[in-house]
Amino acid sequence: MYTFDKSLAAFRRAQQVIPGGIPGHLGPTEGLHLPNDGFPKFATRAQGARFWDLDGNEFIDWMCGYGPNILGYNDPDVAAAAQAQAKKEDVVSLPSTVMIDFAEMLVDQVASADWAMFAKNGGDTTTLAIMTARAATLRKKVVFVKGFYHGVAPWTQKLDYPGVLEEDVANNLYVPWNDLDALRTLLSENRGEVAALISTPYMHGNFVDNQLPAEGYWQAVRKLCDEHGVVLIIDDVRAGFRLDLAGSDHYFGFEADLICFCKALANGYNVSALLGREALKEAVSSITYTGSYWMSAVPFAAGIATQRKLRELDAPALFERLGTRLTDGLTEAASEAGFTLVASGAPALFYLRVADPADSLMLHQDWIAECVRRGAYLTSHHNHFLNAAVTEADVDRTVEIAADAFAALRTRHPAVV
Amino acid sequence: MYTFDKSLAAFRRAQQVIPGGIPGHLGPTEGLHLPNDGFPKFATRAQGARFWDLDGNEFIDWMCGYGPNILGYNDPDVAAAAQAQAKKEDVVSLPSTVMIDFAEMLVDQVASADWAMFAKNGGDTTTLAIMTARAATLRKKVVFVKGFYHGVAPWTQKLDYPGVLEEDVANNLYVPWNDLDALRTLLSENRGEVAALISTPYMHGNFVDNQLPAEGYWQAVRKLCDEHGVVLIIDDVRAGFRLDLAGSDHYFGFEADLICFCKALANGYNVSALLGREALKEAVSSITYTGSYWMSAVPFAAGIATQRKLRELDAPALFERLGTRLTDGLTEAASEAGFTLVASGAPALFYLRVADPADSLMLHQDWIAECVRRGAYLTSHHNHFLNAAVTEADVDRTVEIAADAFAALRTRHPAVV
Repeated sequence: MYTFDKSLAAFRRAQQVIPGGIPGHLGPTEGLHLPNDGFPKFATRAQGARFWDLDGNEFIDWMCGYGPNILGYNDPDVAAAAQAQAKKEDVVSLPSTVMIDFAEMLVDQVASADWAMFAKNGGDTTTLAIMTARAATLRKKVVFVKGFYHGVAPWTQKLDYPGVLEEDVANNLYVPWNDLDALRTLLSENRGEVAALISTPYMHGNFVDNQLPAEGYWQAVRKLCDEHGVVLIIDDVRAGFRLDLAGSDHYFGFEADLICFCKALANGYNVSALLGREALKEAVSSITYTGSYWMSAVPFAAGIATQRKLRELDAPALFERLGTRLTDGLTEAASEAGFTLVASGAPALFYLRVADPADSLMLHQDWIAECVRRGAYLTSHHNHFLNAAVTEADVDRTVEIAADAFAALRTRHPAVV
Repeated sequence: MYTFDKSLAAFRRAQQVIPGGIPGHLGPTEGLHLPNDGFPKFATRAQGARFWDLDGNEFIDWMCGYGPNILGYNDPDVAAAAQAQAKKEDVVSLPSTVMIDFAEMLVDQVASADWAMFAKNGGDTTTLAIMTARAATLRKKVVFVKGFYHGVAPWTQKLDYPGVLEEDVANNLYVPWNDLDALRTLLSENRGEVAALISTPYMHGNFVDNQLPAEGYWQAVRKLCDEHGVVLIIDDVRAGFRLDLAGSDHYFGFEADLICFCKALANGYNVSALLGREALKEAVSSITYTGSYWMSAVPFAAGIATQRKLRELDAPALFERLGTRLTDGLTEAASEAGFTLVASGAPALFYLRVADPADSLMLHQDWIAECVRRGAYLTSHHNHFLNAAVTEADVDRTVEIAADAFAALRTRHPAVV
């Protein structure tokens, strides 16, 4: 059984100089690493579908850096493309034409897109999308779908979060997921005032079972947006390229006006992109929007190599097949041990919840921690991610680990069994 | 004389798929590349103090990627550190301890800092600084110094910019640079309501002569902030590590509460950092703030190598010496040709303006373009940047080019001479 003594010692060292030790979604502060001593804190090496932690433990990694790792860590083809570009240039006083090559590739590949603009964070693209919609419509309000996450800019946070003002969120409206009646009512009540609707392609929020769109949902949303002159923004930062290389809007049979990509664009090389339709090209051009490293050439070269390889592998089909094999195996292992495990969302980004004999967050967390201690890196309240370096053997080994973890759970929680 | 036919053809290709062709500060859309056909648009290779454009022209580069290039492009020590780290890991489901190493190094090096938090854009750190100040003070208003640039988030833009709402800037107050009376009055009028004052360490804005702080200015500002409970935020994204490795607040003899770094942190590897004082550590920890690539290990390794080498070289002293040699040479070359050239700001980030015989933006732009056509990459309305790969020979060659450009200016603008 794995122990994490060196990780925990390093974490205490980190806390001295970094607020929270490990801030954000990779750290324990967001409550994703519970029980806290059941998770490693630092990695030292990553290759393919695996990483190794500071204590020397090896993990089959189902989090993929929370998305960026889509081909496998340190993919040789992407690394070669990045290194070749790095020898020429990266951040210079002028961009490289590799930026154009990547834009042309994405515009060709993503069904709804006529143009591409690059940035660094997913949140850079959601903010640019909102500003573009406001510039194009001269309206202020934005519809969010409850359970949303579109980055950390103040406009996409909540009023009770520290540092957020009422002015930041004054123009935000909210509807439940999959609720066309609520959306119809909201748009009617705010007729002529709504600039945009922003949503992920399906509801892959944290701490809840993930929900796919109901039959006809997106087609109806598209129609409502058209009727009300509302810009339809799809935040494909998390799901992008795992469901469909032409965009998750294409996967669900509709066309976004603006679509935001980040994590899986370049297999971990640092780039994000806002893609959009011709009608919004002038509006997006009018926004003052730039950043220190936004035209760095290495991530563009890495992105081209990544997208090419994803096409060659037909990666979304691979993720669907391996993700289904894994979630089927996990739910069966649960069942054999007398538990009910609910897998939700797309298999490429599966979400897990232990539902029975107790629908308890703590029970679920303990099961996840038992898996982690045995070498399957899962997390408790966030969707997981597939990558193309995963093998059937990795899936089967993970199912074995899960079964052992359920057995351990019986011992740790005798009362619930 | 250089021509840029291939660059201009590529730019037309870029315009098809990228709004504006080259959006942001590296492109012509912000008016920095005037006359438009007098500038190359794309680089293909960069090494040391030079880059080469798509037409094969070689440039001595005084823009340094608008800041990131501080040691010289493709510095071998930084590249070796980055490659060694890349072989181990970069963006993984857990951070590397190299993040702690870099935080410890910066906290040790930067005089005012007790902790460090990392992100990707300079603007990520200015936004985090503002949110932290608001969380700590439970106040809303922020004082800006006129001529400011703190990134592109809506809160730091202006109301007449497309996509910006009155709510975004509703809590912004403005004072002129170097005007203590105005600041004193503003803080009194808004007593108990001001969360923060945000400023660059000196006024290095675009389209104006850059201005250093008046004697005692920063000490008085520090005192006023203390009296009013205002968090003093220094945006050192542009000037950071070029004046003083301990921070530009240290250079001017005061201590910021929060200090923002980006561009020169890691010689172009993609990382930014907010550093701050112990009293704000709890407040910054409370902010929801994270990003997809924020814990990537390669830029941390590159940052350690960069800062170590900057110390070994005593780079700020080198920049002061070479920047002074250059601006002295340029103003003398102007004078000999019957022009007056004004150099302002710190020599490490010198700003230029042709002031006589005509204080004309167009005349200045034409002179800059004549320099660019001869291989000295300068720009018209933005400060320049020194890097440590620059030699005295590069400086002297640039002065020769500038003299030739002034001679050409006489021919192009006979009326003004």
